[in-house]
Amino acid sequence: MTGAPRRLTATYRIRAGSGPSAEEIALAIAREQTLEVPAGVGGAALQARLLGRVESVRPIEGGHDAAISYDPELTGTGLPHILNVAYGNVSLMNGVRLVALDLPNALLDALPGPRFGIDGVRDIVSADAARPLVSVALKPVGLGVEALAALAATYARAGVDVIKDDHGLVDQPSAPFRERVAAVARAVAAAGDSGRRCAYFPNVTGPVDTLEERLATAQGHGCAGVLLCPALTGLDVMRSVAAGGRPLAIMAHPAHAQSAPGRREGIAPEVLFGTLYRAAGADVVVYVNARGRFSWPVETCEEINARLRGPLGRMRPAFPAPAGGVEADDAREWLERYGPDTMLLIGGSLLARDDVERATRALVEAARSVAPGAPAATSA
Amino acid sequence: MTGAPRRLTATYRIRAGSGPSAEEIALAIAREQTLEVPAGVGGAALQARLLGRVESVRPIEGGHDAAISYDPELTGTGLPHILNVAYGNVSLMNGVRLVALDLPNALLDALPGPRFGIDGVRDIVSADAARPLVSVALKPVGLGVEALAALAATYARAGVDVIKDDHGLVDQPSAPFRERVAAVARAVAAAGDSGRRCAYFPNVTGPVDTLEERLATAQGHGCAGVLLCPALTGLDVMRSVAAGGRPLAIMAHPAHAQSAPGRREGIAPEVLFGTLYRAAGADVVVYVNARGRFSWPVETCEEINARLRGPLGRMRPAFPAPAGGVEADDAREWLERYGPDTMLLIGGSLLARDDVERATRALVEAARSVAPGAPAATSA
Repeated sequence: MTGAPRRLTATYRIRAGSGPSAEEIALAIAREQTLEVPAGVGGAALQARLLGRVESVRPIEGGHDAAISYDPELTGTGLPHILNVAYGNVSLMNGVRLVALDLPNALLDALPGPRFGIDGVRDIVSADAARPLVSVALKPVGLGVEALAALAATYARAGVDVIKDDHGLVDQPSAPFRERVAAVARAVAAAGDSGRRCAYFPNVTGPVDTLEERLATAQGHGCAGVLLCPALTGLDVMRSVAAGGRPLAIMAHPAHAQSAPGRREGIAPEVLFGTLYRAAGADVVVYVNARGRFSWPVETCEEINARLRGPLGRMRPAFPAPAGGVEADDAREWLERYGPDTMLLIGGSLLARDDVERATRALVEAARSVAPGAPAATSA
Repeated sequence: MTGAPRRLTATYRIRAGSGPSAEEIALAIAREQTLEVPAGVGGAALQARLLGRVESVRPIEGGHDAAISYDPELTGTGLPHILNVAYGNVSLMNGVRLVALDLPNALLDALPGPRFGIDGVRDIVSADAARPLVSVALKPVGLGVEALAALAATYARAGVDVIKDDHGLVDQPSAPFRERVAAVARAVAAAGDSGRRCAYFPNVTGPVDTLEERLATAQGHGCAGVLLCPALTGLDVMRSVAAGGRPLAIMAHPAHAQSAPGRREGIAPEVLFGTLYRAAGADVVVYVNARGRFSWPVETCEEINARLRGPLGRMRPAFPAPAGGVEADDAREWLERYGPDTMLLIGGSLLARDDVERATRALVEAARSVAPGAPAATSA
């Protein structure tokens, strides 16, 4: 390395058809994402300064990877236009996928990153060592406030670290936000034993004009964190919550993120969940685990883990939270593979058991039996 | 029709591989998007009430279309969770595309829709008849405030209806937001002749905490509308602007919308731009025209047009604004095809001409020569 990069570099996987070559498409992307005018318009100096630069085009199986670098000035140092420069108009073009994103420090420094990070979230739940954490989801939507609070108490007694609202719980009449948060927070506080702290993260996702009040309500009831779905609210809304200074950790949920491995278009999951969600302030990033309901390959999960924990400017590392059909019985196996800097999120599979508390306790014990701080995954 | 639908119905195009059948995938989607727990959890009554209902699964070429209906209660009547129910977790699953969306009046009534609509935008620019409108883009990013203001004056003298900022113009040092809006608004007001009004729509897209100030600045300088990129800010941010009561029309730009015809995943353009952008409050919806830089088929454009103009609860129709490499010379042909309820958006092609004002005037005259109120497209 010859010093930190000064430009934003995006790598696009191009699947060219019978039309223009990959090199021609790369040049078109470099123009589309920046000046978006015919060659020469605006003058040579401006074109030289702000037109995207095609740094490389290299063949891969079934296509090409084109690295294009951009002047950070184009972004106005705001997150919406970081997204615009990296994947704005070309997101409307078939056969162009964003597969890598390198943000210069000038842009990373303008973004909050995780306020708590892995260590801060461990502090919240009084984790005594660099051990993996266990989180569970309050669900299903449609349960009333009392039933949800009773379920939360069960989970807290069983010793989970974090209880999150299902991302589908909003402000439905069956469990309105304010009543739900008050009742669940009270139940969790009453159920926890003294040596250990269980945290409740209510879902504050909702219309943007309700956000401040929901954050204040969560904070007022002693919650140490919240659940937020940045693809439903806009990624910059999460950034504004993280930058806003409230002492609330953020667990980001991927609903509506429109990202999955192997597609011809879109943002690759490791870029979206591993880099962008962390830069935008997520302390915990929920993603789809392998072998669950969605058939993501384990390599994608490991790439997300590596980016959430690896170097990113001066930002703290964030907890990966693999989820989505993780079976409680497999918890230990997953945590041994992913390492202790992992928060396993178990949703519905516990609820199908006859004795939810006992099943949850077994899950917690399995997770605690994983050696703390052992594997090398954290130094990725 | 036997009365207005009471449920939200989403239709998914399923490309099943060698695994589960389309019927099995449809049932999995109905569960994933709602209760997200194993069968039976929460009790039979709750499952019967809130589990998605597979209404039909019919074979199409290369796959199946599955219509699934949902209880509107799941959405909490907020736009973020309308997106979540229609295309939340399944957006992370390969081979599942959202191709149709029917919103019941209970949800449409909770959304603003266009505040001005086609008639209101015509009033803004004093259009004397049901004629097509012409809009142009101020660009490229990197030009200074004076150069942008001079270009805007040229366009205004040539008689365009709407001048919009390029969506890449934010608050860069080359043309900071406040100075740009002040100078361009002044130049446009000074250049317009008395019988005709040219409107300037500055780009207010940016970090969510800057939005109110930018809207106030635009309004303070007499702007009648703004440009906003809802995929960069979050769709609900546009909804909140439309519902906020400022007398500013909204032109929605598709940057980062990640939608295009023919994909296996994502939201079909006619659903996203035709239904959701309109419901969320866009008065004008910019989309990618056929034969431009992005190779969208004209049928997609016509479907977007039909949905922006057709019935949608009690909402006003919105102007379609085909754009993206439209050649000025083809303006008349496009407007004859799309009908008078169209705002043609010409970007860079005018700027490559030797005499921009003359080329723009020719464009305006070509558009004015299209018979007003003629084709039947408006009654789609």
